[in-house]
Parts: sequence; C-alpha cells; structure tokens
Amino acid sequence: MQGRFVKPLADKGSGPSHLSAWLSERLPETGSNMESIPNVLAERYASSAIKSIWSPEGKIRLERDYWIAVMRAQRDLGIDIPEAAIEAYESVKDQVDLAAIDRRERITRHDVKARIEAFNELAGHEHIHKGMTSRDLTENVEQLQVFHSLLVVRDKTVALLARISTRAEEWKAVPFTARTHNVAAQPSTIGKRLAMFGEELLHAYFACEQLIASYPARGLKGAVGTQLDTLTLLNGDPDKVSQLESRILKHLGIPQKLDAVGQVYPRSLDFAVISLYCQLASGPANLARTLRLMAGHELASEGFAKGQVGSSAMPHKMNARSCERINGFHSLLKGYLTMASSLTGDQWNEGDVSCSVVRRVMLPDAAFALDGLLETALTVLQQMEIYPAVIRKETARYLPFLATTTLMMEAVKKGTGREQAHARIKEHALATVADMRSGRSDKNDMIERLGEDEDFPLTATEIQKVLAGGLSLTGNAQTQVDQFSRQVQTIAAAHPEAANYQPGSIL
Amino acid sequence: MQGRFVKPLADKGSGPSHLSAWLSERLPETGSNMESIPNVLAERYASSAIKSIWSPEGKIRLERDYWIAVMRAQRDLGIDIPEAAIEAYESVKDQVDLAAIDRRERITRHDVKARIEAFNELAGHEHIHKGMTSRDLTENVEQLQVFHSLLVVRDKTVALLARISTRAEEWKAVPFTARTHNVAAQPSTIGKRLAMFGEELLHAYFACEQLIASYPARGLKGAVGTQLDTLTLLNGDPDKVSQLESRILKHLGIPQKLDAVGQVYPRSLDFAVISLYCQLASGPANLARTLRLMAGHELASEGFAKGQVGSSAMPHKMNARSCERINGFHSLLKGYLTMASSLTGDQWNEGDVSCSVVRRVMLPDAAFALDGLLETALTVLQQMEIYPAVIRKETARYLPFLATTTLMMEAVKKGTGREQAHARIKEHALATVADMRSGRSDKNDMIERLGEDEDFPLTATEIQKVLAGGLSLTGNAQTQVDQFSRQVQTIAAAHPEAANYQPGSIL
Amino acid sequence: MQGRFVKPLADKGSGPSHLSAWLSERLPETGSNMESIPNVLAERYASSAIKSIWSPEGKIRLERDYWIAVMRAQRDLGIDIPEAAIEAYESVKDQVDLAAIDRRERITRHDVKARIEAFNELAGHEHIHKGMTSRDLTENVEQLQVFHSLLVVRDKTVALLARISTRAEEWKAVPFTARTHNVAAQPSTIGKRLAMFGEELLHAYFACEQLIASYPARGLKGAVGTQLDTLTLLNGDPDKVSQLESRILKHLGIPQKLDAVGQVYPRSLDFAVISLYCQLASGPANLARTLRLMAGHELASEGFAKGQVGSSAMPHKMNARSCERINGFHSLLKGYLTMASSLTGDQWNEGDVSCSVVRRVMLPDAAFALDGLLETALTVLQQMEIYPAVIRKETARYLPFLATTTLMMEAVKKGTGREQAHARIKEHALATVADMRSGRSDKNDMIERLGEDEDFPLTATEIQKVLAGGLSLTGNAQTQVDQFSRQVQTIAAAHPEAANYQPGSIL
Amino acid sequence: MQGRFVKPLADKGSGPSHLSAWLSERLPETGSNMESIPNVLAERYASSAIKSIWSPEGKIRLERDYWIAVMRAQRDLGIDIPEAAIEAYESVKDQVDLAAIDRRERITRHDVKARIEAFNELAGHEHIHKGMTSRDLTENVEQLQVFHSLLVVRDKTVALLARISTRAEEWKAVPFTARTHNVAAQPSTIGKRLAMFGEELLHAYFACEQLIASYPARGLKGAVGTQLDTLTLLNGDPDKVSQLESRILKHLGIPQKLDAVGQVYPRSLDFAVISLYCQLASGPANLARTLRLMAGHELASEGFAKGQVGSSAMPHKMNARSCERINGFHSLLKGYLTMASSLTGDQWNEGDVSCSVVRRVMLPDAAFALDGLLETALTVLQQMEIYPAVIRKETARYLPFLATTTLMMEAVKKGTGREQAHARIKEHALATVADMRSGRSDKNDMIERLGEDEDFPLTATEIQKVLAGGLSLTGNAQTQVDQFSRQVQTIAAAHPEAANYQPGSIL
Repeated sequence: MQGRFVKPLADKGSGPSHLSAWLSERLPETGSNMESIPNVLAERYASSAIKSIWSPEGKIRLERDYWIAVMRAQRDLGIDIPEAAIEAYESVKDQVDLAAIDRRERITRHDVKARIEAFNELAGHEHIHKGMTSRDLTENVEQLQVFHSLLVVRDKTVALLARISTRAEEWKAVPFTARTHNVAAQPSTIGKRLAMFGEELLHAYFACEQLIASYPARGLKGAVGTQLDTLTLLNGDPDKVSQLESRILKHLGIPQKLDAVGQVYPRSLDFAVISLYCQLASGPANLARTLRLMAGHELASEGFAKGQVGSSAMPHKMNARSCERINGFHSLLKGYLTMASSLTGDQWNEGDVSCSVVRRVMLPDAAFALDGLLETALTVLQQMEIYPAVIRKETARYLPFLATTTLMMEAVKKGTGREQAHARIKEHALATVADMRSGRSDKNDMIERLGEDEDFPLTATEIQKVLAGGLSLTGNAQTQVDQFSRQVQTIAAAHPEAANYQPGSIL
Repeated sequence: MQGRFVKPLADKGSGPSHLSAWLSERLPETGSNMESIPNVLAERYASSAIKSIWSPEGKIRLERDYWIAVMRAQRDLGIDIPEAAIEAYESVKDQVDLAAIDRRERITRHDVKARIEAFNELAGHEHIHKGMTSRDLTENVEQLQVFHSLLVVRDKTVALLARISTRAEEWKAVPFTARTHNVAAQPSTIGKRLAMFGEELLHAYFACEQLIASYPARGLKGAVGTQLDTLTLLNGDPDKVSQLESRILKHLGIPQKLDAVGQVYPRSLDFAVISLYCQLASGPANLARTLRLMAGHELASEGFAKGQVGSSAMPHKMNARSCERINGFHSLLKGYLTMASSLTGDQWNEGDVSCSVVRRVMLPDAAFALDGLLETALTVLQQMEIYPAVIRKETARYLPFLATTTLMMEAVKKGTGREQAHARIKEHALATVADMRSGRSDKNDMIERLGEDEDFPLTATEIQKVLAGGLSLTGNAQTQVDQFSRQVQTIAAAHPEAANYQPGSIL
Repeated sequence: MQGRFVKPLADKGSGPSHLSAWLSERLPETGSNMESIPNVLAERYASSAIKSIWSPEGKIRLERDYWIAVMRAQRDLGIDIPEAAIEAYESVKDQVDLAAIDRRERITRHDVKARIEAFNELAGHEHIHKGMTSRDLTENVEQLQVFHSLLVVRDKTVALLARISTRAEEWKAVPFTARTHNVAAQPSTIGKRLAMFGEELLHAYFACEQLIASYPARGLKGAVGTQLDTLTLLNGDPDKVSQLESRILKHLGIPQKLDAVGQVYPRSLDFAVISLYCQLASGPANLARTLRLMAGHELASEGFAKGQVGSSAMPHKMNARSCERINGFHSLLKGYLTMASSLTGDQWNEGDVSCSVVRRVMLPDAAFALDGLLETALTVLQQMEIYPAVIRKETARYLPFLATTTLMMEAVKKGTGREQAHARIKEHALATVADMRSGRSDKNDMIERLGEDEDFPLTATEIQKVLAGGLSLTGNAQTQVDQFSRQVQTIAAAHPEAANYQPGSIL
Repeated sequence: MQGRFVKPLADKGSGPSHLSAWLSERLPETGSNMESIPNVLAERYASSAIKSIWSPEGKIRLERDYWIAVMRAQRDLGIDIPEAAIEAYESVKDQVDLAAIDRRERITRHDVKARIEAFNELAGHEHIHKGMTSRDLTENVEQLQVFHSLLVVRDKTVALLARISTRAEEWKAVPFTARTHNVAAQPSTIGKRLAMFGEELLHAYFACEQLIASYPARGLKGAVGTQLDTLTLLNGDPDKVSQLESRILKHLGIPQKLDAVGQVYPRSLDFAVISLYCQLASGPANLARTLRLMAGHELASEGFAKGQVGSSAMPHKMNARSCERINGFHSLLKGYLTMASSLTGDQWNEGDVSCSVVRRVMLPDAAFALDGLLETALTVLQQMEIYPAVIRKETARYLPFLATTTLMMEAVKKGTGREQAHARIKEHALATVADMRSGRSDKNDMIERLGEDEDFPLTATEIQKVLAGGLSLTGNAQTQVDQFSRQVQTIAAAHPEAANYQPGSIL
C-alpha cells in the first residue's frame, strides 16, 4: 500500500510535518527492501515446526489439500466431478504463487475468492468450493493450524517437564535459603524449588491434554450454519450431508465437532486456546523470574555460552537475558489474551469478519511466542548452573532465622504459649538484624541472645542442636520432588519422543 | 484512613487545589455515611448464594471452622490439645466482631495475626494455628471460596442451558432472515440461532466440569512448602503429616491437591478460574448482543416488565437494557482476567503478598459479575419475546437474496460454472438493491431480472419454485436444535435441581 | 532455529505425537519458503511511510547515522577520531547485510555487539560506540522510530478529521432517526452523527499533539544513567558532556530530554504512546461500528468497489467489511496496550531486557495496526454512501415516537406535570408498538390515540403541528456540525499537506 | 436479589450440587450480615477525600445540587418555576434515604426515574429534570466525580514528588552498586536511583495536568445530543440554550465542554483517565519493586512499624509488604484499564447503557486503587531506611567489576582498540567470578590478573588509582538529582498545601 503522503511532505520539508523529509533523507529507497518486514517472533524465536504450520505458503497448501478432500468426498457421494479434474487440481496444488494471489485479491477485495480463482485457473477447472461458503474452508483450515499448534506445544511441554524433573532430582538434596517476601524464610532444597514450578506446569499440561481431547471443529455448515447448500447439492439427503462432513473431519483429524454453529465457530474457542497458552507459560515464567533473583545473589545462573557477550559496555556482565526473555514472551501472551478476550461475546448474528485481522495476527503470533518461550526455557534448564559455595555461605548467615519456626515448635512443646514464643523470638531476631545492618555486629548471634532470655524455654545449646539438623530442616522437600518426578515419568512414558526433544539453539 | 489533606485545602479554598473546599461545601459530613461504600456488584447484581461465600463475616466463619478442623485432627494424631479448649473455640466461633478485628490489624499490620488473637481471646486459649503459617489458613479457605463459587456458577450454567434449550425448541420452526456482516444472508430459524449460542455455552460448561474435577487444594504445607513445622509438631512422622493433610482436605471437599507447592499456590490456578468465567460469559454475551441487534429491527425484545420505564425523557422507549448489562458484565470479566493474568509468571521465590490486594478484589468481584450475568441472562431468556409479524415481513423483503446460494446450486446442476452463476446473480442483486435504496423501486424484483437473463439457466418460474421452499430453505436448522437439546437434557438429568433453578428478580 | 523435534516424530509417525508425520506429508519442504513469515500487519495493511520507519534495514541505517553523528560530535569536542575514519564509516553505511549480522549475533548472543562488529569491519576502524553502552544507541534510535510514528499518525489524524468534517457538512441537514439503546429515539441529522464521532477524534488529536510536544528522549546516559563513561571520555568535563548530548538530541529532533534516567527510559513512556494509539482509534472505531449498524438497516453503506466480491457463496452480499476491519484493528491495539501496561511498574533496578521481545513486537505492530486503521477509515469516509429514500421511510415510521419529548415539553407548557405527561405518552406509545409488532396494525397511530386522551392536554391537530416541524426537530444539530468543522479548519490550516493526504488503496 | 436456588439444593444436600448444603451448614444465616459486602478497596485502602467523592450518598447530594442549579438557571432564563418550589427542594436535599430509592428502582427498573420521583416527593413539586434526559444529569455528575478524583490524585502526586525529592537529596552522595539485569553494573548513588523513579512520576504528573486542563464536560445536550428539548423549553432561543449550559458548566467547574456529543460522552475520555492512572502508578510501582529487590540484599527496607508482625509463623520476618501492595494496586489498575479500553470503540449510534455496570465499578475502584497506591507510597517514602554498612560491603566486593567501563576508557585513551580492551577485561572478569562462585577464591582479585596481562595497557597500580575514584565513579549522579529536585520545587511552589500533604496511617 502506498499513500500519496510521503511526496508532498518531502517537497515541503519543514514545519511540524517535516517527518518525511527527515526520514526520506535517511531512508531514501522507500521501496523494495525498506518495506520487507518479517514477523520478528517467527524470525528470531520460533522453531521450524511451528513456523511451517503458520507460513502463508503452508496455509495455501493446507487449503488446497482440504478442497481436494472435499471434492473426493463429494464425488464419492454422487456429485458429478470428473476424476480427471481432481487429478488436475492434485497436479498443480504445490504451485503456490503468493504474489499472483495477492494481485487478484486487490481486485476482488475478497481473499478466498482470489484463492479459488487462482487454483481453478491453474487446474483449468471450476470444481472446488461447491456448496461451500468461504468459512467452510477458512474456519476449518485455521482450526487445523490451531489444533496442530496445540500438539506441538503439548509435546514441548512434556519435554520441559522432563527437563525440570531431571534438574529437580539432581539438586533435590541441596539445601538452601528459601525466601518469602524476597527475604530469608526457611530452609528448603534447590530441587524442591524447581519441582514447585514444575508442578505448576504439570497442572497446565493436564489442562492442555483436556483441551486437545475436547477441541471441536466447525465442519461443513454453510453460510449461516444450516448446511443448506450442501443439502441442496446432495439432493436434500441429510445422511449424505452427514457422511460428507464426517469424511472431512477425518481428513482434519480433529476429535470433536460443533453441531449448531453459525458462519463462524465461537471465538471463545480461540480464547480457550490463548488462555491455555498463558497458563502453560506461567510455571516457566515463574521459574525464570526466580532464577533472575537467584542470579542477583550469585546462587545460580542460566549459564553463559562460549563467545557470548553480556554487555557491549561492561565486559564483566553475565546476564540472565534468556530468563528475562521468557518473562517477555509471557507479557506478549498476556496481550494476545486481551485480543482473544475482546473477540468473545462480540458476535453479531451468525458472524462477520471483525475478528479477521485480529485472528490473522493473534493466532500465529501467540503460537510463536509460546514456542519461543518453551524453546528458551528448555535451553535454560539445560544450561543453568548453581553455585554451592555461595549457597552454603548464605545459609550459614541466615540459619538462626531460618529455624525460628522450629524453635517456636520446640518452645511450644516445652509448654510455652505459641504467641509468647513468637514474641520473644521476634524481639531478639529484630535486634540481631538491626546490629548487623548498622555494622555494629558482623555475625548472627541471635542464638546466644535467645539462649540467655529467661522467658524463652530453650538454652543456647538446645538451640544449636536444632540448627544442626541439616537436611532435616528441609522437611519433606525431597519426598515432594519424588512425587513430582513420578508424575512426570508417567507422562514421559506416554510421549517418549516428546520427552526427549532437544531444543534448537537460541539467539 | 484519614490523611491530613482535606482540612488545609478547605481552609485555603482557592487556587488549583480548591477541590476540597468545593467538595466540603457540598459533601459536608465527611464522616460516617459518606465513607460507607458498598460493593456495587454485590449490592445490585449478585445473588445471596454467591454473596454468602464472599462476605467478610462468612470468611471469618469458614476460617474458624477450618482452624477447629485442624485442631481436631491434630488432637487425634497425638498433639496435646485439650478437648475443653476445642469446645471453647466451638462455643465462640459465631461471635464475629469485624470492627474489633480491624482494630487489632491496625496495630499488627498483619491480618491473620489479628484474627488469631481475636479468636484466642474469645476462647481463652492459644491452641489454634499450631505448626501453621498464615497461608496454611488463608490459601485453603480462599480456595474453598473459589471452589464453591465454581459450583454455584456451574449450576446456574446448567439452568441457563436448560432455558436456552426450551426456547430453541419453542422457536425451532420459525423461519427468519439470518445475517452475516449484519446484512441478510440466508434463511434460518430463530430456534437454531438460540441453539448456536447455547452450543457455545455448552462447550464452556464442559470446561467448567473439567476444572471442578481437577482443581487442586494447596493443603498444609508450611511457610515455604516443605511441611517442616507440621513434621516437627508431629515428631518427624511423615505418615502423620500425610494423615493430617488428608483430613483437612476432606474437610474442604476439594478433590485434588498439590504436592510441591511453595508458600502460595500457583496463581495460574486463579487465572484458570477467571479465564473460565470469561469463557462461560461468551455465549450469553453473544446472545445478548444479537438480541440487541434484533431489537433494533423489532424482530424480538428482551421483554418489558409492568411498571418499567425505558427512558426518563422519551416515554416510548423499550430498551434492551438487560442485554446491554450482560455485555457490561462481560467487559468487567475481561478486566478481572487482565488482573489474573498479571499475577501469573510473577512469583518471586516461594511467594509473597504482591498478589494480595489483587485477589481480595478480583476473586469476589469476578464471581459477582459472572453471577450477575447469569442471573440476568436467565431473566432475559424467561421474558424475551419474538414478533412473528415483523419477522415475516423482513423475510418477504429479502427472500430472493436469501435464496441466491440455492439458485447458484441449481444453476450449477444445470451445467453452469459455479463462478459464472455467481457473477450473473451478483449483477442483478446489486442492481436491484441499488434501485430499492435510491427509491427508484419499491419491490425486490431480482427474480424477474434474473429470469430474463439469457446467461442464467433458470427461468423466473423455476426461481419462484425455489423460493417457495419455505422451511426447506432452512436446511438442517431443526435437526441441529434437536442435537443441542439432547445434550442439554443429559446434563439436566444429572443436575435436576440446577436445571430448575429460578433466578431472583433483577434490578 | 531448528530443534531436533520434527525428524524423530516424522520417523515414528504414529501415536499422539503424530503431528509432524501428518504435517510433514502435507508441508514437505520444511525449509526455505515454508519458514518465511512476513509481518502480516505490515504486508497487508500498513503504508510505506510507517513501514520504512520500522523495517530491519531501515533501523540499521538509522543506527549507523546515529553512530556517525556521535563520532562527529565527539571529534569536535576533542576526542581523537580521524576524519578519515568517519568518512570510511560514511562510505559503507548503506551496505546493510542483515544475514551477516544475524550470523554474528548467533555467536555473541548480543545484538548490538554484532552490529558494532559488522559496521567496524566494513569501515576498517574501531571508532564507533565510544563511551557508549548498548542502550545509548538502541533506546534513542527506538525513540526516534516511536516519535516519527507519532508524527505520521498525527498527520493522518488531521486528514481523517478533515474528511469527517467534509462529510458532516455535506449531510448536516439530512434528518434521520437517531437511536439510543439501538432503538428509535429522537431526530438528528446524519452530519451531526458524523461530527459526534469526529469530535471524539478531535480530543484524541489534542492529546496526540500534547504527547508529541512533551515526548522526552533518553539521551546519552551510559550504563546505569550516570554518564560516567562519557564523562571519562571527555576528561571529566561536564560541560562537554552536556554539549555532546545536546548535539545528539538535535540530530534526533526529539523536543524534550530525560535527566535522571537509568539504563532504560521509563516504559510508562511507551505505554503513553500505545495508550494514545487506542484513544485515537476510538472515534473511528465508533463510527465504523455505527456504520455497520446503519448498513443493517440499509440507511448507509461503506461503499462497494467495482469488481469487489461480498461473499464467495452469496453473490448478493455487500458487506461492511472495511468497517469490521477497523473494529478489528482496534481490538489489536487493546492487546498491544496490555503488553505495554505489563511493562510499566516492572523495572528492576536500573533496567534489563525483559521488555526487549515485547517492545520488538509491540512498538511496530501497534503502529502498523493504527496506520492500517487510519488508512481504512480514510477510505471508508471517501467511499461511504447514504440512502435518503430508506432514511426518509424509517423516519416516517417512527416520527410520532421521535417527537415524544417535544410533546411532553408542550404538555408541560400547558400546565401538565412532567411525570404525568410522561405516563400518558408511555401508555399510548407502548400500545401502538404492541399492535404494530403483533401485526394487528400496520401504521403508527399514536397521534390519534394521544389526541383522544382527555388526560393529555394536546389535540391530534396540535400534535400533528409539532410533528410537521421537520428540521426544527433536530435542534442544534446543524450548529454543532459547524462548531466541529471550525475547529477542524483551524487544524487543517496548520497542517495543509496532512489535511490533503490521500490514502493508498486498501486490500 | 434472592434466587430460588439455595433452598431446593439445601433440601437435597447431596450429589454434585451439594454446595448449598455444605455452605448452609457453615453459613447458616444467609440473611442480613452475610450479604453485607463492603467495597474492599474503599474500606481498607482509600482515603476519606476520595471516598466522599464516590459514596452513594455523596452522589445523590451532588445530583440534587445539580438539579437545583439547573432549576435556578432555567428560572432566570424565564421558565416558570416558583422560587418557593426551588426552596422546597433545597430544604430537603440532605434527606437521603438510599433504601427508599432502591425500592422505587425495583419497580421502575430505571435508576434515575427512581431518584427523580424520590426528590419530587420529598419536595412536594415536579419541577426538576425539565427538558432533561437522564444522561443530562448522570453524565455530568459522574464527570464531576471523575474530575475531582483527578484533582485529588494530582495533589497527592505533588506530595509524592516532594517526598521522593527530599529522600533523593538526602542520599544523593551515598554511592552504591547500581544493577542492570539484576547484577552489579556500575556505581551510582542511592539518591540518583530515587530521582530516576521520581522523574518517571514527574512526566506522568505533567500528563495529569494536561488532562485536567483539557477535560471536557458533556453539558446539557438532551437525549441524542441535539439540545432539542432545552431548545423547546426555551422557546427555540439558541442563545438562551447556550447561557443555560454555560451556567451549568460553571456550577460543575470543569474547564472545557463538548459540542457535538450524543447521548453519552465518548468513553475514550474515561479511558484517558484510567490510562493516566496507570501511568501515574508506574514510577512508584517501579520504586516499590526495586525496594523489594534491595530488601532482599538488606541494602534498604520500607521500614517496620512498632508492633508490626512480619509473619504469623516466622517471627524474624520483616517484609516489604507495603511495597508488594503497591505493585498489587498497579496490577488492579491494569485490569481497570482493560475494562476502560473495552468500552472504547464500542458505541452504538448515540449510545446506550452497555457501559453502565462497567463504569459503576471501574471509575470508583480505579480511583480507590490509585489513591491507596499513593497513600502507601507516601508512607513508604516516609518510613524507608537504608543500611550504609551493608551497602559499603557490597560495593567493596564488586568494585573491580563496577569500574570496567572506566578501565576500558582508559585503555582506549592509551591506544588500545575498544573491542580488544573489552575482550581482555571480559576474560579476567569471568575467570575471577568463576573462582569466587566455586569457592576456589574468596576475594575479587581481577585487578591483579588484569594488571599482569601484557595485552592490557594498564598496570595494577594504574587500575587501583581508577578504583580509588570514589564518588567520581558515580559520574553526574548528584547533578541529576539536583536537576530533578529543581523541577519538583517549581511544582511544589505552585501547590504548597499539596506538597505538604501527610498520608493517613495505612493498614
């Protein structure tokens, strides 16, 4: 598209509209290359599998396959379509000339009509699209794209679960300082922290499998959903209409179908998909966010590849940039979710195309974003490192605080009221912290303070014994990791190739 | 909360900050009543069932019930809690003094601590909350509220499905002009249009049942999720920890549980709930939106109660205001969804309270909004009317256009190419429309024009015969209504009280 | 990116992961073309002006220009950079090899470092980027892109205001039935309805000018915002630092600057831009939505181009598909707004790249969407038609209702209480409607009914006189159109080229 | 509202719908208290000033004031309204019986009609609302509420800017380790970090002032915006219509007005307000988020009040819960923004009430959320502490890394190529980090390593000299704080009471 804007402004070259003059100077050839804008998500982040589903050329092929499947079924049900015609379509179906189709669309202003004409002309016949409205083609093919994106995403989720489980097992007995409100709380293990985020993903995985199993195709329903034209074409025989639709659904491989749909399938179905994408992203995004926090304390890192540069200015930098990117992908998904939700509840009558441009953008871009997120998360899980020396040092510093609930339990067992024990510990803990932060003290001596308090029933020695508990202070952490891993193993066993999927290299 | 703002400004009473002076004059008693702000969704739109779940007093009761259930289980597992103490708690559990609890919170700045102290003081004991962190209480009780809201919503969805099905059956053989792009397209039946929106709700209903069946409770996991304190309390016996948790989950009645959770359950679980709310709202919102369109053509209305006033200025107005409100509720839900999505992927370590104020607002308000939507939709379905005389008149006007796909099919059967038939019809249709819109013609004479066209194979008489098809031009519309109704009947049979639910009267 | 996924699955070709087998068959050459995914918004809808700003090649050029501007300024301020080196950079700056840069980035995993090395190698020098961190380059160049997008958008808004004003003047005295709640309310004029939406755009235009005037550039601030490295480079002379920055800001042409910024400029600034885009879209989107409603009543249409096809199935269809698309663009913008808002309030310390992938997508795509919306709206305004014959017929049907407020006013003047007059009119209006909708009556005889009512003070003749008021029943509609047009004229006079901008042809 | 749901289910008490049985047992009195749900944002977080604007009773008063102002103006312009009637209205205007009005609305199903009748009955006259439609009342009064909320928010923003500036000055010369990607980057000062977030707020403040100055009232425009009824009432005299409106706008105190508006003012105006709220929230939310990070490193805290409890389980906890709450408020605002955006571009014809329930919730709740955020932020700024001993220790540990850009600059001055210097430093930095993280080394000895590298031109002594630079390594940090403070001082001088505003105590 080329409006008559740039030139006159460039001629003038002054005043508040001098934009084009300024730009024209710097971006002289507003032509060819300057207008070629790739989809940045596809180009930089998405994998081949997901790109092939959503490429413009791929879609044309899927549509042509679909038209041919319809013709074959129609012919079998008695419609007069010569086998030679079908073969003619078959023989040209890979001749995809996107530019030529685009030129047609600029005349018809109707994208499907342009693609019908192009395919007919190539084949030298007019047999496709009989008894069909545009949506009989596009809705079903787009659902095919959505459905297969779900399958790809499901498989990568399995891979990510497997990877998290491996890491969780590896580090399930590495104690560290778990945090709430971003400050030291209680001991846990690194593996348990990973399992925590893994379990969130696990529940999203179950939701994904449920959506896959219940996803319904629109089917061949005609202009307003009554199947009138297919019925006319098949001489009013509802059984044949039903057989035709069944065959097409089998071609698509989508498990369920809609019955009473109008021209368009309910957009709340797209919404359910994008919403699931967001749900799937949450666990990995939480893990990534927490790894960014851990990197800030040098407890762990996402890894740093050979040759990698952290900062063009600061050579020492090793940044959690892949984790940051994961959080970025998630922000994108939240935006696509708003797009999807804005299409729900907005159907007028049997439908229209006010959703068209939204779905052209949102459906592929959300798939690319989630795919990029999963690929990045897989890479992070593969390359991440933890630094036990730093972890030990931190835990040593905070240990007396980390054990306060245990000390409180022990005090309660000795007969002290729960709330009174809480108050004594709080007083000494705050005083200790105040001294350390002000520089007055260099060590955490809360144990001594508490041991000397007559209103607290434990001696310093008894307290020390509690603190020496080591891994026992991490409660059921290891068992919980195992519970998580067992669930993942069951899933991995059902999807072995998926579980072994290796991500591509990321930018 | 009362900042020191109002007074000085009021004293000054001029300049750009004269706000308070202006307001103070008009809203003099900035005290008592002026500060009492009810939750507008609860007050105006939500039903008793959902309000009782979310009322502040109700929550205190649910919490106290929960604490008592924990004490009983702890006692049974050997913790030294006197039966008399438990009875003391039981005997005071209904003495809920919200103002007194609020006063405590203003000192502790910790809401749970304030509620522990209040309950302890009433009972004269310190036995609740042993081995527990705040989240062991609040997460589970809030999940209880969420889960029961889902059950209420599910039941009202069943009721709405039943109501839509009844109307769809009632009007399944009433032909009318279905529209795409908001203009006349093909014939369908009013019942089929309703079934179309009903089927969208049906798929959301299935998703609702799946979420109910898979919803996991956090359980008793302690401060960072390791169950350390419960383990300490139960002398390190993991079996007893497990038994304690099982008993508590049974008390809650939530079917599944989390294993490796941290301090907070994954917020993507709240997201899944709010997202489901949006999905459930879409079908009714589409129906409401389309009913607003139909009202504009006087084809149908949402009903108009005795005594109702449409407009304070225009006495003749009968507005689709309940349908408009349904669309409004849906817009609210989209906003709560953004809140829910903004909590996903934002967990730091084992958790914190950055989600607290969001969940205090979003969880009840989204439930109120959906409840209000469902109540309103039930009312609309009950009171809506259709106007057959107007419907017939419209269809008569558009009939020649509505049958163009059938005419095209018939032409194809006579050997004309599909795209050529399309072109001939298009030419005459556009010319007819042009004449009618310009006032040159008062009737739709496309049949005559087409019949006289030598390049079109059907005569006017043959075309008339097609147009006389009546209900046969509505294709499978009636069958589709029946398919929908059969599915609804199965559900209604499983939930008979729900299916018969009568909505309260709406504002 | 190419993960090791497709192959193994394809080999297996069965089980729940058979996706790739299914797809591989149909999309065989998962290679070259199948992975080329253009930005669909840029390709189908955006204009050259906006595309040139955001093209990958264009950005490289803008960056190189910027680096050269920095070098020149540094040299002038005493840094030892040979003129020959600068000339070497100048001479190669148009040699943009995107693929080669991409190959470098795959090693460094740092996009700016890759572009530094590429430019250095081309020029044979290492003089760019001195004293700079990546963000000293990217933040400013991206702001340049944002700022120039704002200018383009501002100019097209001026054009759209001018076009709306022209149409509003053309039809300012065409009376019609204005609607509230989508049902007939009072008379107005078509021109006034357009001016109503135009005035909404006018206020967004003012907001746009304010944002342009106050938009601040980040400037040359270094890694954490302290300007340390520039200060070091310039031997600690703060005046020189200030001069250097001033020169660079002059190069950029952005009016304001930030002082205390960190590594990244506040993302609430991006938010303000995207939010403004949404605000600018609202008026045109409201107009489009209302035109879709009007098309449903055949009162108006968006026009229908020669050769255009409305439906591949229904040849008679003339759809408001461009208006629908406008509403679609607006839904997209709402999603980009959620992305933008999710970046606000999420800065950690002096900044990081968690916003990077979001901004790579959101900033250009939102600009493309708004540009597409404005181009489409300009086209619709140019091609839209109204159908006076249909408009007159509708008004005749509803006239007695449309005048009810005037009748009520007249009754009040005769001494009847306002609420009593309201009640009498309401009774007769509802009865009349009921008779018309049921088919009992074919004409609107409310006048007769009301004239005969003894409790209503006007006779049928008096009522008829009120109804004969014609344009006087449209109140100040024409004056309001003129008020709107006068404001637009002032703006058009300040931006004459912008006001005369002709949109490109749309798909 | 009380549906007939609870009872039958309670009777049954089993099966999947046993919800009510379960709940009925625990929440027995589903009546009075259990249904009283306060607005949680108003109750817990908002200040009196903002609550008085939005209280139901306050709104009734503002409406009655407005009706009286209209009557007075109408009387002055010749409408026959007895002075005694106006006095009668005046004398009863404070008698607000919300329950009685509610009972009326349940009959009329029209809120304004109910309030007209209530006021008329109290006064014993029927003189209010002449020539007016509901929206002539409600739109203007709601805009009054919105406009005054903006004024309150503006004033508190001034207070917050003043507070940030004070803290920034206090700590402008306290050096610390600034971070990008959450890892140590370069030195800066604490004051500069605060000024950075303050400057973000400053730009939002400017946007706020612009919105206040340009905010337009709808005015008295009648049912479809043509002013027909006012014109009729004033005998067709447009001058009088204009005078009437001017007087009402003066009563409202809103600076601008709309001319060509329909029944409702453009909802993009509400959107602009909520969007501004989000923008205002971003700076404080970024500050809060960063303070949460700093608390995690014990560099600073938000303060901890006497008597405060950090955790009911872990007595030692001092949590950044107010900062977390600030981030929570911001998440709420993002949700209200989605609601606001969903109303834009969705106007049908001259308007309807599909926005009504949304605006009833969103307009007050967004104001409460922002008010709560600002109150909390003011409190945090007042109570926050920094811990210089901890800050110094951290900086000592990272200093060699923090100076790498300076070392690189110095190396470049000595003739080494920029990219080569970068490579040498990177190698030694990464090796040093690796040794420290693995526990192999306990100190940062990068200086020695680098000094010994023959390919790097600086000796260890030269490097040490650079590191000894102290505050000079913070570049222009102090100057930048002063630049920010000067701008704040100008604003504070224009709004002295606002600048001195003291927040109320927070929960």
